[in-house]
Amino acid sequence: MPVVHVYVWKGFSNEAKKKVIAGITKVFTDLGIPVHAVEVIIHEIPKEDWGVGGEQASEKLKDVQPP
Amino acid sequence: MPVVHVYVWKGFSNEAKKKVIAGITKVFTDLGIPVHAVEVIIHEIPKEDWGVGGEQASEKLKDVQPP
Amino acid sequence: MPVVHVYVWKGFSNEAKKKVIAGITKVFTDLGIPVHAVEVIIHEIPKEDWGVGGEQASEKLKDVQPP
Amino acid sequence: MPVVHVYVWKGFSNEAKKKVIAGITKVFTDLGIPVHAVEVIIHEIPKEDWGVGGEQASEKLKDVQPP
Amino acid sequence: MPVVHVYVWKGFSNEAKKKVIAGITKVFTDLGIPVHAVEVIIHEIPKEDWGVGGEQASEKLKDVQPP
Amino acid sequence: MPVVHVYVWKGFSNEAKKKVIAGITKVFTDLGIPVHAVEVIIHEIPKEDWGVGGEQASEKLKDVQPP
Repeated sequence: MPVVHVYVWKGFSNEAKKKVIAGITKVFTDLGIPVHAVEVIIHEIPKEDWGVGGEQASEKLKDVQPP
Repeated sequence: MPVVHVYVWKGFSNEAKKKVIAGITKVFTDLGIPVHAVEVIIHEIPKEDWGVGGEQASEKLKDVQPP
Repeated sequence: MPVVHVYVWKGFSNEAKKKVIAGITKVFTDLGIPVHAVEVIIHEIPKEDWGVGGEQASEKLKDVQPP
Repeated sequence: MPVVHVYVWKGFSNEAKKKVIAGITKVFTDLGIPVHAVEVIIHEIPKEDWGVGGEQASEKLKDVQPP
Repeated sequence: MPVVHVYVWKGFSNEAKKKVIAGITKVFTDLGIPVHAVEVIIHEIPKEDWGVGGEQASEKLKDVQPP
Repeated sequence: MPVVHVYVWKGFSNEAKKKVIAGITKVFTDLGIPVHAVEVIIHEIPKEDWGVGGEQASEKLKDVQPP
């Protein structure tokens, strides 16, 4: 405890993934939860599989890139 | 709000994905929710990773194809 | 196939839930998928457990109500 | 983008929830993602519904409390 | 690893929950995974929030009870 | 009912997947649930996308392999 599922667009760099994992884990250790108890699972989703406002993000947000 | 996670077999055409995103979004806008608030995330799952009735869909439902 | 998980704020009326279930199911039957194969699971989330823009929806979107 | 689902034991204080939402959001804004794009959904799970090491957390970790 | 999310209708007895947790954990320890690494999270869903075949399970499967 | 989502590291053998699907399904049929009602969805996650103790499993648990 906790288990954290993170859904992002495909294309996060390895550096960004490390920051996501370390940063989210720290949120919980700051609350007194032991570090080994925190699991963070990143799910990369292709932009054409992510709909926002009724359209694929690959079309609607064509120029926005993941970090 | 809402966030919708859709789990389907791998192989949905791009046309089918667009219909899933637009169609599900419309269900919520018909209820008065603003279109920009709706997020739909499609997860394509290989048929061998989907179990139904205790068997892999790749075996049990060998001849059924996604749209 | 498919399995659809819908996350919404707590407080959807029974009528709205029926429309969500029927409407999302129809999106898939329109694609040729048999009606009995569609499962839709609604998860009602208290507004204080839903964060948007870094704040609880119960504070940031105090006056917005679910349908 | 992103959508973050956080699964924790039931009993988080409102203060802890605020810190989870604000802290996780900041992880993504630090990566250059706009604050309004971050959604964090907290799911509180009763300890008897959470299994760890084959047992209910309500038995195995009887004395551990959420923050 | 693994994390297992189990979605069932509300009303599972405590005995049934214990069997679900112990049984699923054993599936993984039989594959050589250490028992402490297995997390099983049960989500109880009210039958009116679970749609099957386009209708609420509370109507369509009125007489079926969880174990 | 039930729907079971299993999150594991990428690299499970086909034999292991079959055992996961059959084994988890049996847990529920042993409780009296009909076999055709059980759906098990396996999600394979690359080890660099799985954080444990604040680090990527690909680094922290470099030598541990999935079955």
